[in-house]
Amino acid sequence: MKKLVNDPDDIIDEMLDGMTAAHPDYLQRLPDTQVMVRDDAPVDGEVAVVSGGGSGHEPTHAGYVGDGMLDGAAAGDVFSSPTADEFEALIDACDGGEGVLCVIKNYEGDVMNFETAIELVEMEGVDVETVVVDDDVAVEDSLYTSGRRGVCGTILVHKAAGAKAAAGADLDEVRRVAQKVIDNVGTMGMALTSCVTPEKGEPTFDLGDDEIEMGIGIHGEPGTERTELMDADAITEELTRNVLDDLDPDAGQEVLTIVNGMGGTPQMELFVVNRRLQALMDEHGLETWDAWVGDYMTSLDMAGCSVTVCAVDEELKELLDAPADTPALTTR
Amino acid sequence: MKKLVNDPDDIIDEMLDGMTAAHPDYLQRLPDTQVMVRDDAPVDGEVAVVSGGGSGHEPTHAGYVGDGMLDGAAAGDVFSSPTADEFEALIDACDGGEGVLCVIKNYEGDVMNFETAIELVEMEGVDVETVVVDDDVAVEDSLYTSGRRGVCGTILVHKAAGAKAAAGADLDEVRRVAQKVIDNVGTMGMALTSCVTPEKGEPTFDLGDDEIEMGIGIHGEPGTERTELMDADAITEELTRNVLDDLDPDAGQEVLTIVNGMGGTPQMELFVVNRRLQALMDEHGLETWDAWVGDYMTSLDMAGCSVTVCAVDEELKELLDAPADTPALTTR
Repeated sequence: MKKLVNDPDDIIDEMLDGMTAAHPDYLQRLPDTQVMVRDDAPVDGEVAVVSGGGSGHEPTHAGYVGDGMLDGAAAGDVFSSPTADEFEALIDACDGGEGVLCVIKNYEGDVMNFETAIELVEMEGVDVETVVVDDDVAVEDSLYTSGRRGVCGTILVHKAAGAKAAAGADLDEVRRVAQKVIDNVGTMGMALTSCVTPEKGEPTFDLGDDEIEMGIGIHGEPGTERTELMDADAITEELTRNVLDDLDPDAGQEVLTIVNGMGGTPQMELFVVNRRLQALMDEHGLETWDAWVGDYMTSLDMAGCSVTVCAVDEELKELLDAPADTPALTTR
Repeated sequence: MKKLVNDPDDIIDEMLDGMTAAHPDYLQRLPDTQVMVRDDAPVDGEVAVVSGGGSGHEPTHAGYVGDGMLDGAAAGDVFSSPTADEFEALIDACDGGEGVLCVIKNYEGDVMNFETAIELVEMEGVDVETVVVDDDVAVEDSLYTSGRRGVCGTILVHKAAGAKAAAGADLDEVRRVAQKVIDNVGTMGMALTSCVTPEKGEPTFDLGDDEIEMGIGIHGEPGTERTELMDADAITEELTRNVLDDLDPDAGQEVLTIVNGMGGTPQMELFVVNRRLQALMDEHGLETWDAWVGDYMTSLDMAGCSVTVCAVDEELKELLDAPADTPALTTR
C-alpha cells in the first residue's frame, strides 16, 4: 500500500490533529472524540447546522466548518458512520439555543446513529430537525443505503443552510432551504480506478486497464455499469445525461454545476470535463449561474469524477453566494 | 492510460477553456494563445505580476490569477515552457503602465523564453524586472535546470509580490519583496508513484511497490534517493530535515509551512503529514504562523507531497495575509 500513513489504525486521529494544526482559527476538536466544531462554538442565538459521516471524503465534512456553513462535523472511521455518542457530542457542542439542523447523507449507519443521538439530545431539550441528502441519481438502492445515496450535492446543502442560519433564520426556515437544495440537485460519479482503504491496503474493486465504472458511490461500492474506457467528453455526456434525466429542468433554468474530483484526479482533467459540461448546459438551454471545479467530496485516492447539477432560483442563488469562510470553501 | 482526456494533443487547450468556463469572473484567455490574464487586465496604475511555465502543475499558475496575486500566467504544454511569443503576449496584456514583474521558476526553458520576451517588450518601452525562484533544496542541478529548481515556494512569491503591487508599490519594491520570499523559503518533495503524462501514457519513472523516491521535482524527473517505503512520520522528518538544514532558521523564528499534494494524494494523507510537520516545528523551536495544506503545485497525477518552510517577518506576514481573491486561493 502506497500511502502517507503511519499505523492505519491511527489515521483518522492523526488526520484530525493535522487538520486542527492547520486551521486552529477555524476548528477545535472535542476532547476524546472525532468531532470537529467551530473554534467559537456554540454560536449563541443562531441555528446550528451540523453534519458528519465516514472519513475518506475530505474535505467533507470538517473542511466546511466555519462562518456561513457548518457549525461542526463528526468524522467516523474510514467509510464508517460516527457513533451515536459522537453525533450526540456534536449536537450538544453546537447548539446555541436556537436549535440544530442535522444534514445527513443517506447511508443506513449515518441515519441510524444520527437518529439515536437526536433522541438523546431531544430529551435534554434541544430542538433538532433533519434533512437527508440523496442526490446520487445512479442507483435506487446500494450496499449501504435504502434509497439513493447522498454524495457531492451535500456541500450545497451545507452552504445554503449555513447561510440561512447565519442570516438569523429560525430552525424551520433553515430546514426548508436545506430541503429545497435536496429537491433540486442531482449527481452522478464514475471511477477510472478503485480507491484503496488504509485498513485493507488494496483496491476495493478490480478494474481492468481499459475499463471504467460508471455510477459509483463514494465508498468503493460498485457502480451501475462497467464499460470500456471512454474519452472525457463521452464520460461527461453520460454522467450529465443521467443527472438531467432525473432533474428534468425547464429550458432557461439557471444552474450551479460541480465537477468534483474523487481524490486522485488532477485538476487538469477536471477542467477538461468542465469544458464539455458547460457546452452541454448550453445545448440543453440551461444557464450556468456558477461552475465549481475541484475536490469537494472524495473517495480516498480514487481517480474519477462526479458531475452535479443544481437548479437555482433567486433564493438559492443568494444563499449559495453569501459569504462563507471555511478551510475548504471561501466565498465573499 | 487512465485519464479524463480526449485527444492528448488537445488537453491544454481544453483545460484552459474549461478553466475560463469555470471562472469567467476571474479569467480571460487571450485569443489564439495559452495565456490567461485577469478579466480586467491591464490594471492601470499598478505594477503587474506575471508568471508561467509548463502545464501539469495546476492550480499553478492560472489558478492564482486575480486580485492580490497574479495579473496573468502563460501555460506551456505539459512540462514544457511557454514560447517567447506567449510570454511577450502575457507581459503586453498585463502592463498597466507601471511595469511588470516576471516570476520565473528556475528551469532553463522558462528562463530563456522569458528573457527573449523581455528583450522584445523592453524595446516597446515596457519596464520589466524578474525574479527567479529556486526553492527546491533537494538538488543543485537537474535534468531541466542549472541551479536549484523552482517549486511550491513560488506560490508565496506570487502572493507577496501580488499584495505589494495591489498596495500601490513601485516595480523595485515589488521585486524586492518577491526576492525576500525567495531568500527565505525552502521546499523538498517526494513521490510514492510516478506521474503519467498524457502524451506518453505511461509512468515517467518506474518505482517498485515498496519503493519511494525522495527529492523529486515536479516534472517526473528523478529524485536524489530511492528508498524503501517509509511511514508518513519518517518521510516528513526526512523532508523537513533537509529544508531546515538549508534554511537554517534561528530558534523562535516564525514560519509559514506548506504541505503540498502532488496531484494524486488524498487530503487525509496531507493532514497526517502536517501533524508531524507541526510537531517538528515545535521541536526545532520554530513558531508556525500559518500552515497551508492542499494541492498548490502539482505534478499531474503523482502521489506524494512536498514540504515548504518560509521564514516570515512582519513585512512578509502582512503581505501573505493581505486579501487575495483568485480561483485557487482566497484570503480575506
